[in-house]
Amino acid sequence: MDYLTGVRQKETLEISELLLNAEAGQKVHVNGAVHTIRDMGTVAFVILRKREGLLQCVYEEGIAGFELNGIKEAATVEIEGTLEKNEKAPNGIEIRMEKLRILSEPADERMPLAISKWKLKTSLEAKLNYRAISLRNVRERAKFRIQEGLIRAFRDFLYSQGFTEIHTPKIGAKGAEGGANIFKLDYFHRPAVLAQSPQFYKQMMVGVFDRVFETAPVFRAEKHNTKRHLNEYTSLDLEMGYIDGFEDIMAMETGYLQYAMRLLSSDYAKELQILDITLPKVGQIPAVRFHEIKEAVSEKYGHKMRNPFDLEPEEEQLISRYAKEEWDSDFVFVTHYPSKKRPFYAMDDPEDTRYTLSFDLLFRGMEVTTGGQRIHDHRMLTEKIEARGMTEEGMEDYLAAFKHGMPPHGGLGIGLERLTMKLAGEDNVRETTLFPRDLSRLEP
Amino acid sequence: MDYLTGVRQKETLEISELLLNAEAGQKVHVNGAVHTIRDMGTVAFVILRKREGLLQCVYEEGIAGFELNGIKEAATVEIEGTLEKNEKAPNGIEIRMEKLRILSEPADERMPLAISKWKLKTSLEAKLNYRAISLRNVRERAKFRIQEGLIRAFRDFLYSQGFTEIHTPKIGAKGAEGGANIFKLDYFHRPAVLAQSPQFYKQMMVGVFDRVFETAPVFRAEKHNTKRHLNEYTSLDLEMGYIDGFEDIMAMETGYLQYAMRLLSSDYAKELQILDITLPKVGQIPAVRFHEIKEAVSEKYGHKMRNPFDLEPEEEQLISRYAKEEWDSDFVFVTHYPSKKRPFYAMDDPEDTRYTLSFDLLFRGMEVTTGGQRIHDHRMLTEKIEARGMTEEGMEDYLAAFKHGMPPHGGLGIGLERLTMKLAGEDNVRETTLFPRDLSRLEP
Repeated sequence: MDYLTGVRQKETLEISELLLNAEAGQKVHVNGAVHTIRDMGTVAFVILRKREGLLQCVYEEGIAGFELNGIKEAATVEIEGTLEKNEKAPNGIEIRMEKLRILSEPADERMPLAISKWKLKTSLEAKLNYRAISLRNVRERAKFRIQEGLIRAFRDFLYSQGFTEIHTPKIGAKGAEGGANIFKLDYFHRPAVLAQSPQFYKQMMVGVFDRVFETAPVFRAEKHNTKRHLNEYTSLDLEMGYIDGFEDIMAMETGYLQYAMRLLSSDYAKELQILDITLPKVGQIPAVRFHEIKEAVSEKYGHKMRNPFDLEPEEEQLISRYAKEEWDSDFVFVTHYPSKKRPFYAMDDPEDTRYTLSFDLLFRGMEVTTGGQRIHDHRMLTEKIEARGMTEEGMEDYLAAFKHGMPPHGGLGIGLERLTMKLAGEDNVRETTLFPRDLSRLEP
Repeated sequence: MDYLTGVRQKETLEISELLLNAEAGQKVHVNGAVHTIRDMGTVAFVILRKREGLLQCVYEEGIAGFELNGIKEAATVEIEGTLEKNEKAPNGIEIRMEKLRILSEPADERMPLAISKWKLKTSLEAKLNYRAISLRNVRERAKFRIQEGLIRAFRDFLYSQGFTEIHTPKIGAKGAEGGANIFKLDYFHRPAVLAQSPQFYKQMMVGVFDRVFETAPVFRAEKHNTKRHLNEYTSLDLEMGYIDGFEDIMAMETGYLQYAMRLLSSDYAKELQILDITLPKVGQIPAVRFHEIKEAVSEKYGHKMRNPFDLEPEEEQLISRYAKEEWDSDFVFVTHYPSKKRPFYAMDDPEDTRYTLSFDLLFRGMEVTTGGQRIHDHRMLTEKIEARGMTEEGMEDYLAAFKHGMPPHGGLGIGLERLTMKLAGEDNVRETTLFPRDLSRLEP
């Protein structure tokens, strides 16, 4: 019988440890994947890829106690050597190699993609086909560190605001939003669907915890094949009770974005630099009414309105352009969407019931959030269900929460991959999705 | 056009704000759901349910500027009154009510469950049927705050250990573990499955980030109807490269558990008290070999071994009892599981290939984690696939990662609901699942 007492101390050092705790001339052990080897004749550079970045190791005959051709690209190795300062090396340090231990060797060292180039110059298609390889490129993987910062900030900010994290089922009997875009499956010989959103569940949980959030996958069987749609994505959802109006929800999102930008600046500065990202200012976010901004951009840019009830992608771009030009903001809330384009549970504006107390957040030309106040009154809810010609069947549990009392509430859903995409300046959401699912892509 | 500048300051105070920032005699505004009303004749107590707990409000004729029968149970209200100290009230404070504003009223105030009782005395079946209501009971909801602490600790601890959070697809072409327990669905006229685990993806991502984790739902179409199985649950998964052995994985889990218990003690003390939970000591966790502990409990407790290759539930209980009696530990690692009961990617023990470099963690009589070292060598992996009579078809992308080099690595998966269940002293995993999915339960 042995005892495990906690994380084991390693002899090998990470890059941050080399920078903080080690001194030039010191003997160190490091490990990593051989990212690339540059043989300059008398000297060679072996670049290790580690989780914190690249580490330059120097091979010199006579000093290294092994042959250079003992190292293959894509092998993983442990190296013993001397730490030295070198301004030209990544992070200003390098290791003069003395001993080598091979940890693993590739079966095939001819990589399908030139991952050691600074920018991976290949098609999106190739990047996705060889996903486990393309993400080894330092810039490609950095996007997903930024994504981590965004979701981490969402949770940490909401914990600080008294929210409780919940986990709601993805398999259910009926979709929350209705419509045709639902994946169906067989659940022990019963028909079931995959959740399009945690909408019903997060509302029910407002009656329990007042404020809740969930960060989880959602599934949309939409037959769109566009640069902005995915059939499975990570949704950042929150729902909060005791609101005075839907402005409380927009204010909470503004607070989140402010927090996220601060976290990225402090903890993900390296990745921001690798990707050459300039963070948007989020001091204040303008909010403007749907029909007013539609008219404003139509007038200012000579855009012809085709659909008075929804925003076309081109209009989203124009509204963002308008917000940048007029208010110097990368973000803009568009409020009071037409009732007929919002789901039944959306709260209509009592001052004009053709519109709802709802909003979208546009970021650099694209919708990244949909939110608003919900109906909390049981009778109002059942009347709206009836008025829409819908049935209460399958919504009994949802409606029971309202029957037995629910506070005024609202919430939002943010598409994590889209938010990452616009922040990273990408033009296809697949670029910021680890393993995208779309009409044609079910693998890898 | 308006501006949103961040979270809006509320006039209403939360319980922690009343305790920290308000003084006896001060006029305050509070809101909440009417949990219960106790009319004592000359005086009445209106107990508000708020996210931080219960708040006692006192109704006295002459002081309150409204009628007591203006308040219904299950309504949500905003109250203006005077803060007073009262040792007998929850948190030692109460509000003498002066003004009342009704925020919402229930359509039906006859609650299906007596949620204001300290312990909800009803069947599990009833609790699950009225989930949105039963969770309004203070003890019922506290379990899910503990669950939050466990998952939050997992992420925070792993961030601190250099892990990157990933989001892998739940819809795929092929299951990672194989076998019959896979939910199937139609994906735009192509056969697809729901992920049983993120196994293949997290391994592929070890080649990218060295250390990764994911906290997400997994789906198992198992036809078990037991107290410990769910068909959908939240899996806490990690995978780490550059390990010296599978002991590194167990040590990381030990570190996580130590961190989690500290976080629960500091940030969830209220819920621990509500549930009367005594946290287990996690100074060190004993690790013992599968065949040795099987023999030891057989001998000590006279248990008859039926299956030499797996642990029966009864054996898990006996092993935990043994660990408690012999080593005073609520946790015990059982290591070196038989190869034939572990998946193809498990690393066999080079010293005896009938066993694997793997482990389960048992906690108070039940398996809550499965983990181990994986095969990282491409050839060893393909040979094992062949030896098992499996096909590489559908695993090309997974195998490509190995072909092009992977470090020695391993990982684990923890069932969040089971861990919560054993910590909370429940005997059915449904008690600690927000909306369980099992053979008969697809709603709510």
